[in-house]
Amino acid sequence: MYTPPLARLIEQLQKLPGVGPKTAQRLALHILKRSDADAQALAKSIIDAKKQVGFCKVCFHLSAEPVCEICRNQNRENKVICVVADSRDVIALEKTREYKGKYHVLGGVISPMDGIGPEQLNVQSLVQRVNQEKTQEVILAISPSVEGETTTLYVGGLLKPFTKVTRIAFGLPMGGDLEYADEVTLARALEGRRELD
Amino acid sequence: MYTPPLARLIEQLQKLPGVGPKTAQRLALHILKRSDADAQALAKSIIDAKKQVGFCKVCFHLSAEPVCEICRNQNRENKVICVVADSRDVIALEKTREYKGKYHVLGGVISPMDGIGPEQLNVQSLVQRVNQEKTQEVILAISPSVEGETTTLYVGGLLKPFTKVTRIAFGLPMGGDLEYADEVTLARALEGRRELD
Repeated sequence: MYTPPLARLIEQLQKLPGVGPKTAQRLALHILKRSDADAQALAKSIIDAKKQVGFCKVCFHLSAEPVCEICRNQNRENKVICVVADSRDVIALEKTREYKGKYHVLGGVISPMDGIGPEQLNVQSLVQRVNQEKTQEVILAISPSVEGETTTLYVGGLLKPFTKVTRIAFGLPMGGDLEYADEVTLARALEGRRELD
Repeated sequence: MYTPPLARLIEQLQKLPGVGPKTAQRLALHILKRSDADAQALAKSIIDAKKQVGFCKVCFHLSAEPVCEICRNQNRENKVICVVADSRDVIALEKTREYKGKYHVLGGVISPMDGIGPEQLNVQSLVQRVNQEKTQEVILAISPSVEGETTTLYVGGLLKPFTKVTRIAFGLPMGGDLEYADEVTLARALEGRRELD
């Protein structure tokens, strides 16, 4: 049905997340319609990103430099570390523009089913960092799944002897409707209630 | 927020149809997570497809060879040509496995607003082909938009002196509900009614 180079392109595009046969065909035909320069630029950006982007050796966030921009930024609070599972979470938190401290990316969550224990994650380096940098607060910002909770409790337990450990709040999302919230979320929201200022 | 090579990759991916900032970020992070070989294969498939895929010189369908597989296939009916606007339509018709004739891809529809007249389309070559190949039937399979209708009428008028010209049927889609069909579709379905066998 497809001429071979087109079939191969569609096959490759289908490996991307959320891209099925129809979307892959549409993307492939779009690439063929665009200029040579556009196709070259797309291909080059893939190879360059893969070649140049690694992990920051301090916080393990994605970085093209040995130490990432956030870690190098002198204007950021140095005594607070926000611990997240993935670089994606750093990006999400940065978008809020609320947080001015540093990060530490674990690279996943503890999941014995998938053979991921603390040794597979950047936990050891976090403990070292907290001790060396005399961190005053570690904020755990890990999604509240079963594995996430396990990770939060494990990392929290490890760090408590050395520093103040907090975790982000769980409750009703902004714009969320109390009536439609699930029971666990509501229970968490009740539990995390605060006095009105 | 993004390290520069990652930012460039996201920017490039956003140029694809239906890919917004969130999807582009997800695709980019997925590419970074995959192996070097996977990223190379994706980049190579883009460049190869762009370099190798051109148009069949007979029917103007996408092809890596000077003459496409459909045109070269001796088992296909040689005296029937199905005229479509785009290579996408050839692929859609081939998926039905119902049609055994040849194709001719116009490369668009007549659209004076966009400066596309018959000269910008593969119309001249179609007329020549019909005459040279002594085509017995030309089936016009062009979407029934305003521009599509104009194109159907124009091409039909050109070819009528030389061959039998038909067009595909319009009516209620299979599984469609009469109650929810728009009036134009219903009118077309009535108009195109046939006697029960």
